[in-house]
Amino acid sequence: MISSSQNERVKYWFSLKDKKNRDINKEYIIEGEHLVSEAYKYGFLKSIIYCGELGSDYEKIDCIEVSRNIIEKLSSTPSPQNVLGIARFFDEVKTINNDKIILLDGVQDPGNAGTIVRNALAFDYNFVFFSNDSVDIYNSKFIRATQGYFYCLKILRGDIKEFTKILIKNKYDIITTYLDENSIDINLVNPHEKHAIVFGNEGQGVSKEMIELANKKVVIPMNSKVDSLNVAVASGIVMYQFNKINKY
Amino acid sequence: MISSSQNERVKYWFSLKDKKNRDINKEYIIEGEHLVSEAYKYGFLKSIIYCGELGSDYEKIDCIEVSRNIIEKLSSTPSPQNVLGIARFFDEVKTINNDKIILLDGVQDPGNAGTIVRNALAFDYNFVFFSNDSVDIYNSKFIRATQGYFYCLKILRGDIKEFTKILIKNKYDIITTYLDENSIDINLVNPHEKHAIVFGNEGQGVSKEMIELANKKVVIPMNSKVDSLNVAVASGIVMYQFNKINKY
Repeated sequence: MISSSQNERVKYWFSLKDKKNRDINKEYIIEGEHLVSEAYKYGFLKSIIYCGELGSDYEKIDCIEVSRNIIEKLSSTPSPQNVLGIARFFDEVKTINNDKIILLDGVQDPGNAGTIVRNALAFDYNFVFFSNDSVDIYNSKFIRATQGYFYCLKILRGDIKEFTKILIKNKYDIITTYLDENSIDINLVNPHEKHAIVFGNEGQGVSKEMIELANKKVVIPMNSKVDSLNVAVASGIVMYQFNKINKY
Repeated sequence: MISSSQNERVKYWFSLKDKKNRDINKEYIIEGEHLVSEAYKYGFLKSIIYCGELGSDYEKIDCIEVSRNIIEKLSSTPSPQNVLGIARFFDEVKTINNDKIILLDGVQDPGNAGTIVRNALAFDYNFVFFSNDSVDIYNSKFIRATQGYFYCLKILRGDIKEFTKILIKNKYDIITTYLDENSIDINLVNPHEKHAIVFGNEGQGVSKEMIELANKKVVIPMNSKVDSLNVAVASGIVMYQFNKINKY
């Protein structure tokens, strides 16, 4: 059992709290037995760090017993569960196969981003792409905010403009919520089955470059007293609306 | 100019950070010139606490100049604006006049509650009622989360069951999001023009008592992999859906 925070492995795990070190090692910390077992199921789990008893068997996974103080040191919550995991980064996405896609263009708040992932799964979008200036997808607050749905859909981070150009080549509709004279009420839009929806930064909205790449601009009809909705709420409404079009 | 935190008025203002003292004095702190001017416009402003220059004239309002350290002491944000206000509580609501109502049954998170208020205004609900076990409506984090819309609609806190019984006497539909065999898809519901929608606690959902008082139970159709949506997102979708029924 490891109990010293000076232990080399502990030092390495602790270093993964920094995005820079996560990006170098392509590994990150996950918290709680639920996420650990999900990472195991999907083949992303590399090792388990636990104290006390371990609930399940994890074949071929390195399980390292540590003292409670090490768990507390590594966790990002005030009262962590007794099980943490080290998981490897997702693979690069090589092909687009009729994915239903959400593009996050500078969404910064881990809570908003996690809620958007939950909305995506609820309304049958299977792929959430994060721009490089969005929250890091291996940030523990973000992973926690996905409420255990982190491994249920494709999540990727990268150059959003390059990725959008690939989508356009693949004949995707690129739809963005943006109010100008050409914007269409979301009730009157019939999106192509292959489509991606762009949601923007909490303060600035969608970037100029992404507005230019989009071929449809849509608005949620609302009282003019309100400038804009919270981005997680807006995403939920648009996905709800587009998802039901073929059902009613 | 007041610069001592031992000053009696400063001590009183500081005491308003506690709900208990707000409830005794029926006053609370608001932050920033926008909210202060809104409170003034609606007749709730009692005094202004500022440092530096004051942008506008506030007739018949006590304006007290203080040092920057007093502003920082009273504010709930790390980098406050130079203007705070002391406002009086809202009046009790005596009558219900065709209000479109949201009932919050144990919504605890100030961010969620503030987002729900913004959603309400966006989708033409004009009254948000908070149960006694919801977040305090004079909590500064909640007021901030309403993004300046705090004075744009009726906000009240009290006994939610008693209030709901008054609504029922006034022939209101009481609608709650709850999944059981009698729940109706929100797309298939045609709510009475006089209706109130109940949203519940982030963890436990709507309370048993409120489910019993409701005459309609509705669900948002979604992928069965997801247990539930974030309450602010769910409220946005239901309000969006019900608000547009008469428009399309």
